[in-house]
Amino acid sequence: MKILVINAGSSSLKYQLIDMDGEKVLAKGNCERIGIDGKFTHKTFDGRVITKIIEMPNHTAAFDQVKNALISGEGKVIDSLSEVSAIGHRVVQGGSKYDRSVLITDEVIKDIDELSALAPLHNKAHVQGINAATAAFGKDVPQVAVFDTAFHQTMPPKAYMFGISYEYYEKYNVRRYGFHGTSHRYVSARCLELLGKPDGKGTRVITCHFGNGSSIAALKDGKVIDTTMGLTPLDGFMMGTRSGAVDPSVVLFLMEKEGLTTKEMDDVLNKKSGMYGISGVSSDDRDIVDAINAGNERAKLAWDMRAYQIIKYVGGYISALGGVDAIVFTAGIGENQPELRQEILESLSYLGAKVDYEKNQVHGQEAEITTPDSKIRAFVIPTNEELVIARDTMELISK
Amino acid sequence: MKILVINAGSSSLKYQLIDMDGEKVLAKGNCERIGIDGKFTHKTFDGRVITKIIEMPNHTAAFDQVKNALISGEGKVIDSLSEVSAIGHRVVQGGSKYDRSVLITDEVIKDIDELSALAPLHNKAHVQGINAATAAFGKDVPQVAVFDTAFHQTMPPKAYMFGISYEYYEKYNVRRYGFHGTSHRYVSARCLELLGKPDGKGTRVITCHFGNGSSIAALKDGKVIDTTMGLTPLDGFMMGTRSGAVDPSVVLFLMEKEGLTTKEMDDVLNKKSGMYGISGVSSDDRDIVDAINAGNERAKLAWDMRAYQIIKYVGGYISALGGVDAIVFTAGIGENQPELRQEILESLSYLGAKVDYEKNQVHGQEAEITTPDSKIRAFVIPTNEELVIARDTMELISK
Repeated sequence: MKILVINAGSSSLKYQLIDMDGEKVLAKGNCERIGIDGKFTHKTFDGRVITKIIEMPNHTAAFDQVKNALISGEGKVIDSLSEVSAIGHRVVQGGSKYDRSVLITDEVIKDIDELSALAPLHNKAHVQGINAATAAFGKDVPQVAVFDTAFHQTMPPKAYMFGISYEYYEKYNVRRYGFHGTSHRYVSARCLELLGKPDGKGTRVITCHFGNGSSIAALKDGKVIDTTMGLTPLDGFMMGTRSGAVDPSVVLFLMEKEGLTTKEMDDVLNKKSGMYGISGVSSDDRDIVDAINAGNERAKLAWDMRAYQIIKYVGGYISALGGVDAIVFTAGIGENQPELRQEILESLSYLGAKVDYEKNQVHGQEAEITTPDSKIRAFVIPTNEELVIARDTMELISK
Repeated sequence: MKILVINAGSSSLKYQLIDMDGEKVLAKGNCERIGIDGKFTHKTFDGRVITKIIEMPNHTAAFDQVKNALISGEGKVIDSLSEVSAIGHRVVQGGSKYDRSVLITDEVIKDIDELSALAPLHNKAHVQGINAATAAFGKDVPQVAVFDTAFHQTMPPKAYMFGISYEYYEKYNVRRYGFHGTSHRYVSARCLELLGKPDGKGTRVITCHFGNGSSIAALKDGKVIDTTMGLTPLDGFMMGTRSGAVDPSVVLFLMEKEGLTTKEMDDVLNKKSGMYGISGVSSDDRDIVDAINAGNERAKLAWDMRAYQIIKYVGGYISALGGVDAIVFTAGIGENQPELRQEILESLSYLGAKVDYEKNQVHGQEAEITTPDSKIRAFVIPTNEELVIARDTMELISK
């Protein structure tokens, strides 16, 4: 069975075609700058690469490129579209209603559209992606929605409510939703396997998804009890260009002083802050590390701030969990930044955590990075959100 | 030596006259609703009470009431104003410049006034209070400024910087300052005495000031390394009417949805949130507890949220400190809410904290509330900010 995984953004459409027999990626690619000009990239399992500059006025036009690339020309990996059994969509915001993946129906599309109030940039694009997929593959190919928020729906109210007037929760559903749920789910499940407790019972695990966007989740008995991202993916600690949590009065103070609109302030917090905003160098960790090595003090400050903020969140979650059995690092930075992992784990030496400095040098591969006598186990577990989406899709259409 | 301690707000003026021989409060009182209508209350050490409704158009008029009450009529405690050796002022915002108390000079007044940019409501009022004191007592009575922020100035940059564009730090000094510094200083010093380590070396202490406004500080070697309040006293965890930290995007989301100005949003976060906003009952803990006992679920939610947020901050600071030797509870709620203290300490049972349930029943009195075999010691230590202000004032004028 072959499943097409779709991640639609407002001007982009990423895809992977996965053969579920062996869970092998046959092809993957990206339609960029949809509605602007257009760039299409397609890579196959055996190394063929297609890149074209081509106008894509909308998501349906983007899907045409994907279809053609899959079944014809140099990037061809299947003979006919009918080989695609189903389509799985990443959906950022599933609200309080969706605590798991679902088959897409008209009602689901309506819900995703209505949830745009909470995630305007993302959910609108997902609806476009779903409609374009229907146009391209027809009504008979089943589609599944896999929500970034679903895995976090086990949080208790004391963790998901913000300390503002209750009416805003009632009126607008303002609460913590959390994101990267698909990733936290994948790596936490793998961690429980590694702990020899696949059902999760009695376990206390902290999963660290560190990428350009980053979040941490705390899991008790395999279920999320708290996570750092909030109403939107801005909350938590410093990321590439996002501020993470700041004193809310800072938002108002700066709007006042700089005469910013809410939209402009949103841009400041989401695009001009974080590692980029503090270092003034880049949002990319590799550039930050280069700058630190060249003696750039603000790059060092950005590094220290982020590590310190993470250490506080991890410590807070350990108290919330009443201790911790294992910590998982994943995603671009989590899998490839031994120094950051080391700093975090060393901060837990008071709890008996012991880093295995050699094993911690791993990049992008599964590894246990603490010593056998460490009181807390830590793992690097590469994440695979597309695979989770494909698996969920297969499971749902097989029912 | 007698010292007058002043805490001037925009429409209020609280005072205490303290005889430093024995550190005895001779009289204390409050001028309320200055510039509106006016209410004056004055209480003496021996139980005499004066209350009058009297117009006070400005702080100078308020000082006239204080002067008269001290030296004449039913509330008289001294024969002449010349017995007042000095005046100590509480000043909320001392910026990065003031890391300790100082004798007030024209330059200091100018600095406090300029720091109004960071604390408009408070610092403007302090300047009025200082000028009114000068008008009332003359230039020859020395005055001292004791800053709420000073004790937190030992925080390292990784703790006091927010993850926003660095230019805002350069342009407006946007950073974490922390407040209640005088209280954290008083109770932490007492805690170090109780630990038998008055110089603080090698100690890791967490001080919890829980009042209508609340904050927590983490101290290493007796010096603050982090605290929950930020640029303003809004940051941190839920308070009586303040939200504490929320996803910054919530601020923008609500402004947008409700069409609020920055001033209106500031009111929402500072006056309509926190325990009051969630419970819908009251900002006062006693009302919240009554409501919980009457089965009010939102009051229970408010209680649980606050306790949980505190538990996470304490846990975060323990990681930041690399462990903890002692935790101190102080101020109205901290000294009088055994259930909250219990909940926090029980969350640390994974570190070997053991509550002494009997001793923890204490209200407003110094006590050690953990068992002798507890791995973390916890104390209730009543705070006394006025006394610190008076002591600092005496010390500075004696130099």
